[in-house]
Amino acid sequence: MESEKIESIVKAVVEELSRRGQTGAGSGGPPKSSSPPVKKNKLKIAVLGAGNSGNAMAGHLVLKGFSVNFWSFFDFELAPVIQNGGIRMEGEVAHGLAKPEMVTNCLDKAVKDVDLIMINTPATVHRTLASILCGLLRDGQIVVLNPGRTGGALEFARTLKRYAIRAKIFLAEAQTFIYAAELRGPGAVEILKEKNKMRVAALPAKDNRCVMDILVQVYPQIEAAQNVLETSLNNVGAVNHPAPMLLNTSIIERSAAGEDLRFYRDLITRPIVEMVMEKIDDEKVSVAKAFGLDAWTCLDWYRESYGVTGPSLYDVYHNNPYYLGFHAPTDILQLNNILDEVPNSLVPLASFGDLVGIDTPAIDSLINLACTMIDIDFWTEGRTVESLGLGKRSPKEMLQYVEEGDPFGRCREGRLCRSISWTQNGVLRTQSGVLKGS
Amino acid sequence: MESEKIESIVKAVVEELSRRGQTGAGSGGPPKSSSPPVKKNKLKIAVLGAGNSGNAMAGHLVLKGFSVNFWSFFDFELAPVIQNGGIRMEGEVAHGLAKPEMVTNCLDKAVKDVDLIMINTPATVHRTLASILCGLLRDGQIVVLNPGRTGGALEFARTLKRYAIRAKIFLAEAQTFIYAAELRGPGAVEILKEKNKMRVAALPAKDNRCVMDILVQVYPQIEAAQNVLETSLNNVGAVNHPAPMLLNTSIIERSAAGEDLRFYRDLITRPIVEMVMEKIDDEKVSVAKAFGLDAWTCLDWYRESYGVTGPSLYDVYHNNPYYLGFHAPTDILQLNNILDEVPNSLVPLASFGDLVGIDTPAIDSLINLACTMIDIDFWTEGRTVESLGLGKRSPKEMLQYVEEGDPFGRCREGRLCRSISWTQNGVLRTQSGVLKGS
Repeated sequence: MESEKIESIVKAVVEELSRRGQTGAGSGGPPKSSSPPVKKNKLKIAVLGAGNSGNAMAGHLVLKGFSVNFWSFFDFELAPVIQNGGIRMEGEVAHGLAKPEMVTNCLDKAVKDVDLIMINTPATVHRTLASILCGLLRDGQIVVLNPGRTGGALEFARTLKRYAIRAKIFLAEAQTFIYAAELRGPGAVEILKEKNKMRVAALPAKDNRCVMDILVQVYPQIEAAQNVLETSLNNVGAVNHPAPMLLNTSIIERSAAGEDLRFYRDLITRPIVEMVMEKIDDEKVSVAKAFGLDAWTCLDWYRESYGVTGPSLYDVYHNNPYYLGFHAPTDILQLNNILDEVPNSLVPLASFGDLVGIDTPAIDSLINLACTMIDIDFWTEGRTVESLGLGKRSPKEMLQYVEEGDPFGRCREGRLCRSISWTQNGVLRTQSGVLKGS
Repeated sequence: MESEKIESIVKAVVEELSRRGQTGAGSGGPPKSSSPPVKKNKLKIAVLGAGNSGNAMAGHLVLKGFSVNFWSFFDFELAPVIQNGGIRMEGEVAHGLAKPEMVTNCLDKAVKDVDLIMINTPATVHRTLASILCGLLRDGQIVVLNPGRTGGALEFARTLKRYAIRAKIFLAEAQTFIYAAELRGPGAVEILKEKNKMRVAALPAKDNRCVMDILVQVYPQIEAAQNVLETSLNNVGAVNHPAPMLLNTSIIERSAAGEDLRFYRDLITRPIVEMVMEKIDDEKVSVAKAFGLDAWTCLDWYRESYGVTGPSLYDVYHNNPYYLGFHAPTDILQLNNILDEVPNSLVPLASFGDLVGIDTPAIDSLINLACTMIDIDFWTEGRTVESLGLGKRSPKEMLQYVEEGDPFGRCREGRLCRSISWTQNGVLRTQSGVLKGS
């Protein structure tokens, strides 16, 4: 086993080195990007969220020459970036000080006149952001959830509808996050790996071409998924994140006490993989297959995303040279592995499974355990077929809906749509705090 | 009738003038406040939301000598205040340039170290704000929803629980907004009336005393309601706002075309009051009475809040001298009278009615009409007994829950509560965009 592991690591490193020798574009792998192109790319991008992933994406896209507005709700996240004069990019993939066009806590300023809005928050924030963005979005803007977890785009669209969206936007969700990245201190981030391939689907999927035309300008390795059910049901986070968090209280205590521990190295043991995680993977694949979708096992996913292979899923986690950089949590609620992935990955997988008659006992048992340990009823708080607005549809009708439907509830052509004719100014104030005293 | 109306207006004006001659404090009416006290009040207050009500409250509290942090999601709302050097307060109740301690789009900065957080947004924003505030709140802070509409505090608490609140805060909802106020241009607001009396309830109501001790320092005319079911089921907005918006398409078109029309004068006709609004009032009162709560008719409410009386509800609307300042909408979705009050006032009233066996045909018909006209299913999007987390309780158990229960799901004494022991720094990052690349 030890020699297999070394062989696999060597193979992955060699592949990565050869990839960096190429131009990248069109090769299916990520383009080389540590030296920025002289000519500015004309795309204007808002990166929303300033945690590990937001910093990584904003910084990398700046270094690639894009005009980037970088936004977070919180001053404590952006203050170091402002103080440093940019995002400090560390490591091999992208290096240097990346200066966004704008670093702001104002959401309206951040998204004004941008072509592409990249949402890099936990899925717990999708509904929140949709409710605030609703009145700010403009015709033709593309919104991408990085990633959607399970049901992100469906929940986002339903929220936009509930807040009476009028703009004709494009909405898409990614199957995973394009980078493996971790913060390295205030305003500093290391991209451990830019993935070789990532699938994205628009909602509805008939918008795929419009979305992909723009997205491949940013990430040539992105390819279109069939629809958001494919991206949602191939949610690898559901396998990777909750189980190691819930089943490692002693490691978390030791990490909190100051020991240098790593997420994948120390929390992902062979027993946890074989007794729990592989079973979740199997259930996830069964649900996706029951919908007739292109279902990837985690082994498929690591081969395609990272170029990492191995004889078992355990070996793949431990062979993955990009994973050693991820530190262990010091608190069971860190990383959103429970607060985000239980309600927004496991619960909807169980719900979709229920719809197509696939039992999900491993997923169910993890959800029940999380409810018990954290004292939150994730079954009622999480995303379900019903809460995503798919309630009365058969699986076939759901597929039709995510490919051809109108999840935003925009009106039929030629009719008033939520009183467009009455609108007098550019700012729709459905979310702006306007309230009439009674 | 004409002479009755004049008599009633004269009476209200005389009452108001005599009230302003008094010191205000302890009299049950609002204190005189156009000249600020020399000594600064020590309470630190965050006013969240910068529409009509947020500007009115922030400006008035500044002029009363409080330290106020003024926050909105949006630059377009705060930029005029920053540019003007403060909020321009117009009219008799409060006049002058009010300079908040801080005007910011950063929520973390706005709520840091304040004693009292006054949320002045549409109820549509309650869940959104709770999800963002969750990790920022600190032990002992008081959060008040101005107002809660129906179920505001219950929804807010449920959201805090779902986002794993750890701080021990106090949460309360107001039955109405303390002012009648309207913006008078960018960064300028007129307070038409500060209400004579307003009820507030904490959730749970056993916290009433702690909350009231602070609130009466700010508004002496506030008194405690029995519990949040009382404040929620006496929701006058449900009567006043949706019906005139839905049943006045021609007035809204004329207003959009530039005619000077007023909300109460021109949208509230005798037919609309007698054919619809009084019936909604009756249903609302019946539901509150079925819970054994102190139920106010709209006539009671106008007498207590405004000191305005009259032979019928129609007369009261038209006799109310403070109401003429409210302009007619130019769009059916303005003022949040539909997007906010249908799902957050009418739907929960129907749901509570259903629970106690009170039919609500007038309320139901308005909800159905709104669903048809606006193409949003408010029945499923709105607040219900179930969505507020009260699902399996009897009315008696609900009363017990809102008075003595723990809606935040904080753990039993002496146990780990969502892993408090693991927390290493002051910032809980459940909402901060932290996301682990997978």
